Amino acid sequence: MSATGDPADAQASADAMAAAMFGRDRASRALGMELLSVVPGRASMRMKVREDMLNGHQICHGGVLFSLADSTFAFACNSYNIPSVAAGATIEFLRPVHLGDELTATAEEKIRARRSGLYDVTVTNQHGELVAMFRGRSHHLKGSVVDTA
Amino acid sequence: MSATGDPADAQASADAMAAAMFGRDRASRALGMELLSVVPGRASMRMKVREDMLNGHQICHGGVLFSLADSTFAFACNSYNIPSVAAGATIEFLRPVHLGDELTATAEEKIRARRSGLYDVTVTNQHGELVAMFRGRSHHLKGSVVDTA
Amino acid sequence: MSATGDPADAQASADAMAAAMFGRDRASRALGMELLSVVPGRASMRMKVREDMLNGHQICHGGVLFSLADSTFAFACNSYNIPSVAAGATIEFLRPVHLGDELTATAEEKIRARRSGLYDVTVTNQHGELVAMFRGRSHHLKGSVVDTA
Amino acid sequence: MSATGDPADAQASADAMAAAMFGRDRASRALGMELLSVVPGRASMRMKVREDMLNGHQICHGGVLFSLADSTFAFACNSYNIPSVAAGATIEFLRPVHLGDELTATAEEKIRARRSGLYDVTVTNQHGELVAMFRGRSHHLKGSVVDTA
Repeated sequence: MSATGDPADAQASADAMAAAMFGRDRASRALGMELLSVVPGRASMRMKVREDMLNGHQICHGGVLFSLADSTFAFACNSYNIPSVAAGATIEFLRPVHLGDELTATAEEKIRARRSGLYDVTVTNQHGELVAMFRGRSHHLKGSVVDTA
Repeated sequence: MSATGDPADAQASADAMAAAMFGRDRASRALGMELLSVVPGRASMRMKVREDMLNGHQICHGGVLFSLADSTFAFACNSYNIPSVAAGATIEFLRPVHLGDELTATAEEKIRARRSGLYDVTVTNQHGELVAMFRGRSHHLKGSVVDTA
Repeated sequence: MSATGDPADAQASADAMAAAMFGRDRASRALGMELLSVVPGRASMRMKVREDMLNGHQICHGGVLFSLADSTFAFACNSYNIPSVAAGATIEFLRPVHLGDELTATAEEKIRARRSGLYDVTVTNQHGELVAMFRGRSHHLKGSVVDTA
Repeated sequence: MSATGDPADAQASADAMAAAMFGRDRASRALGMELLSVVPGRASMRMKVREDMLNGHQICHGGVLFSLADSTFAFACNSYNIPSVAAGATIEFLRPVHLGDELTATAEEKIRARRSGLYDVTVTNQHGELVAMFRGRSHHLKGSVVDTA
């Protein structure tokens, strides 16, 4: 969080968090996720569905879709540079996702208090169709994600 | 589903589904999951947390935990050899999960109707501590997972 | 749903459903709910918190808040004059609600298929503060709510 | 919470909380709920479906079912005499509930930490059929529900 309340500082802090956190986030990188944008309270990521993401019915594994939504939520809720973890989430699977589909997830903060927050994430495919809706609850820890002093 | 209603047939059908579905499930195998047991309406799986499953806070990514629960749910709800997909799920993250932790997920059917079902999954670590609780809703399709005729 | 696809017919059908359904909805009327508006896929209702809505901590009972959100969801998902019931819902309680508070709930359709739909409902107080977020899944039955032929 | 750790004291404290809280809980009493039992971490309540609990489809309003589950959850999570409120909940509606049905809700603690807890509630009808499943998250405040010194 910016010590000054200056929006430019808030964005610089979000950028520093995003670079540091994405660099350490082996799980998101192993799934080929790209971080498209992070601003305070919002984030967007992209992922292409690979063969090793398919389940036994030969459609995208629900856990892979959840992972994309959960990572996007994590970048949004850590955007203030206060370390935040997921306390829980709900997901609705709305359309099947296939090999080669290009997915975009967008996370948006709904409410944020000192200790917790609520974020909605939508996942769409390359045709702009909604494939999943995710709602995540964050729990805020002490300290900061990166030192921005 | 057993055509005869014989429990031995029901188990044979569950075994055939499990072997076929796990063989095709690249996502679950990529995460190193082991299928411990499948009986009609129940399943159990195991997974060890690897470095490429850690998130930017260096704890197990929520999507990886969800994936283990979701796969276990899938084997339980497909155990009747009627193809079933997840319509949605909720997850509560109860304790942080660390590199090297050995997780066991157990799925149990709560209710099952013609078109849908409800399953509870618990995930515990190697100390027997509950680390996540998952509740999944299944949607049943037509046909069968494997031909057991 | 309008047989003609004419928006004026769709609204007339929504109006006829709303009048008939609200007239029969003893639970919503017992809680003093007012139906503010219904258009295809959306609805809005209002309720004032009475003494008999308080729980043992002397704040508004969560079930009363859920009821307001659920009724608003019901009017939105029945707005096509196809009878629809709730299959399940999630609610997040974001701020305490007190005696005399005037609550407004607004339901918005997120996705709608032949057999089911997903609706988000927000509940705000008289200060415009978000007090609860609800997400409901509808299940569509056969027939119509009212005869509009 | 018992200062002594004695089970008899814990039960006496739960009993004192239950009597005080139910006495103040106008919403639960307005719905005709009966408190069947409260022990540390568990509670059970009963309610008969009245005409003023029916919705526009002439089945029990989802909010009334949620209210019964939510009240039972509240008695379970306040059973330690530490004031606790609901942070959020999910509910699945599994069977329609009709006028005159006699419902029993049973709440069971799944996990409990200093600041929060997780409780599962099942609601069954007079035939022992499961009609709803509820999962609630509690948030614990400071102080006590009743003075048991």
